[in-house]
Amino acid sequence: MNAADLIRRKRDGAALDADAIDWLVRAYTDGDVPDYQMAAFLMAVVWRGMDSAETVALTLAMLRSGAELRVRDRVSPVADKHSTGGVGDKVTLAVAPLVVACGLPVAKMTGRGLGHTGGTVDKLESIAGLRMELAPGEFLRLLERHGLALSAQSRDLAPADGKMYALRDVTATIDSIPLIAASIMSKKLAVGPSHLLLDVKVGSGAFMKTAADAHRLAATMARIGADAGVHTVAALSAMDQPLGRAIGNALEVAEAVDILHGRGPADVTALCLHETAMLLHMAGIVATEQDGHARAKQAIQDGSGLAKLAEVVAAQGGDARQIEDTSRLPHAPHREVITAPQSGYIARMDAERIGMASVRLGAGRLKQGNPIDHAVGLMLLAKMGDRLDAGAPLIEVHARDAAQVASIHDDLLDAYTWSDAPPAPLPLLLGSVSGGG
Amino acid sequence: MNAADLIRRKRDGAALDADAIDWLVRAYTDGDVPDYQMAAFLMAVVWRGMDSAETVALTLAMLRSGAELRVRDRVSPVADKHSTGGVGDKVTLAVAPLVVACGLPVAKMTGRGLGHTGGTVDKLESIAGLRMELAPGEFLRLLERHGLALSAQSRDLAPADGKMYALRDVTATIDSIPLIAASIMSKKLAVGPSHLLLDVKVGSGAFMKTAADAHRLAATMARIGADAGVHTVAALSAMDQPLGRAIGNALEVAEAVDILHGRGPADVTALCLHETAMLLHMAGIVATEQDGHARAKQAIQDGSGLAKLAEVVAAQGGDARQIEDTSRLPHAPHREVITAPQSGYIARMDAERIGMASVRLGAGRLKQGNPIDHAVGLMLLAKMGDRLDAGAPLIEVHARDAAQVASIHDDLLDAYTWSDAPPAPLPLLLGSVSGGG
Repeated sequence: MNAADLIRRKRDGAALDADAIDWLVRAYTDGDVPDYQMAAFLMAVVWRGMDSAETVALTLAMLRSGAELRVRDRVSPVADKHSTGGVGDKVTLAVAPLVVACGLPVAKMTGRGLGHTGGTVDKLESIAGLRMELAPGEFLRLLERHGLALSAQSRDLAPADGKMYALRDVTATIDSIPLIAASIMSKKLAVGPSHLLLDVKVGSGAFMKTAADAHRLAATMARIGADAGVHTVAALSAMDQPLGRAIGNALEVAEAVDILHGRGPADVTALCLHETAMLLHMAGIVATEQDGHARAKQAIQDGSGLAKLAEVVAAQGGDARQIEDTSRLPHAPHREVITAPQSGYIARMDAERIGMASVRLGAGRLKQGNPIDHAVGLMLLAKMGDRLDAGAPLIEVHARDAAQVASIHDDLLDAYTWSDAPPAPLPLLLGSVSGGG
Repeated sequence: MNAADLIRRKRDGAALDADAIDWLVRAYTDGDVPDYQMAAFLMAVVWRGMDSAETVALTLAMLRSGAELRVRDRVSPVADKHSTGGVGDKVTLAVAPLVVACGLPVAKMTGRGLGHTGGTVDKLESIAGLRMELAPGEFLRLLERHGLALSAQSRDLAPADGKMYALRDVTATIDSIPLIAASIMSKKLAVGPSHLLLDVKVGSGAFMKTAADAHRLAATMARIGADAGVHTVAALSAMDQPLGRAIGNALEVAEAVDILHGRGPADVTALCLHETAMLLHMAGIVATEQDGHARAKQAIQDGSGLAKLAEVVAAQGGDARQIEDTSRLPHAPHREVITAPQSGYIARMDAERIGMASVRLGAGRLKQGNPIDHAVGLMLLAKMGDRLDAGAPLIEVHARDAAQVASIHDDLLDAYTWSDAPPAPLPLLLGSVSGGG
């Protein structure tokens, strides 16, 4: 095998066979193929794409680059749930404990935030003492004992993905559906659940801006999962505006606790119930999704979902009192309300822009490894379709100081489009794609 | 400026402004932009192309990465002549001394062979003692004294091209018309002639396989030259079969001497006369191209072209007796004739395949820096349109031993297509594109 020849074939639009892809990923991981050849190859993939067989082969090559946890050999059934990332997406924080409270274990390894979207690890690390960097042995012990383990992605799993992602990040080769699908799925398959629910976000705050792209990504990932024998469903959901009201780490933990109390915002609560119901139904815990919905609501009403979250936070060294009383979470010293600049309906919100404003407060990072500020963020006091009078409260900014608020004020307001008539309501749930297994 | 952002913009099909291109080339040459980012950028250029302004900007950025010789400030007019490379292309060896003998100085820096095409430096180094690595000062002194200097490309000129070419070679990013044009033209402009004739090869033995691509490359280079104030003409010529009969370094020097004696093969002699006439006409040495033809023929008949070659060879330390008597050039110990496997007309020849067979004898190199064997090569005893009986002499192989001949025998014969009827004759000269200046 010869890297330049494989690059040339991909550049010319050929499909590579599994042996070639496997060789390339292995040689790159071992350092025998240099970054510059992989960078050229990745750009050729952005250009030419990969067919289904190539994408599966890439995923499996990345999977085989490291250890496999195979959680389903220890606990079965066992679920995993992944979101492609959006603004204000704290769904995992509520769905994971709800699903476990309903009798389905969840083994969740998750990422840190990058760019305009937050990461579940960063959000959970708002909780004092909570250890998110779990060794595989501890991850498995927690899963067996509590039915739930929450960890940062282990570097031992799919290390090729870590190396390739870092390269893609600096070579403008992130935006490729087969590369995104292989990156996500290699990490999910390395954990090895029996059931996998993928939440593919689509809209202004998502990486997939169009329904067509989101559907392609969903179908690609569902097929990879099915191929690997994992019962996989990829559900599309809207990210046209931030999810819920809270954006920022501690603020989103508090909102997740609100959801588990049954007092969360309507949109994000609906999505949490829907995903919980889907997972319970997929794993055969309930007979129908409708039954799953009822079961999820019950786990909210009886407090068992919240109790499960507090139990696991404590088991991972975190201060569970911050879950019981979210006013104990880190809070920003300066709060300031931005008001509506005009009267009217909120017709559109640019979720990516709003997410970036929160990042600039310090809630997220523009580069991997940057520190973040868990306390800062935004509380959206109005959402799409709401009617406000000029001067009415629009956003509460949680910041370090007034200068920070001033620095994002205009950009935040630019993210809103106003109209005189109420906008047509947009659906939150946009269908799903199943892969057998 | 940010390299990832420039890659992204090119990936998305945007045209970059001159400042951005200049920054990228400078930062890459200085080592501030790593190979992997440049590799991704280059693949994005292969994909998206570059418009005229971008290609000019890239050329000038590469030109400014090093010294400029500006030969036209020392001698004026002064011509340069460049071929994009073919099989058996010894035209420069005859045209340069002919043009100088007719009164137009020629400053020629040239490359080594790579892949299936030969390089003028390698061919001239068949001559014992000839120094082709000239320092700029000596190059200029020779030019002033003899009207002709022949040198390997100086590493001080357009060093960005050297670094980028080495990267392109291993990342499958050679095949891009703007990148090829900028690479050639940055080196030509760094020498700085007043008149430049580009011979763009098209056909089975050329890098440009189609007339459309060759025309695009010709037009791109002519425009770059005109933009830089150099009177530039890009002429297209056929490379459907090897040029002349000789392929291989010493064999081609001997054939160039034959041309200067007026006894060279018809096709390559016609091309030499045509290019000499064009250059003399471009520089105003003659009033019409027809006059240029007559002048070139005269320089053959009176021996002044050959005398000029011998003079410059001697001035650069070479053994001029090898020019006067080409039997003194290196010769291979084993000569063997391959015969026609069938009766018929030679309908087609795969020039690239024939060139590669010669490379495998040792006449060329597959990797930069590999040594070459000046003595070996092929003498084509028949060309397209010739009718042969089965068993008639087809190719005389000049090799180290019989095993070498056996190793290329079948592949060589596979390069020939035979027909019962004579093939339609193909034109050698395919028009030209001018850039003012």
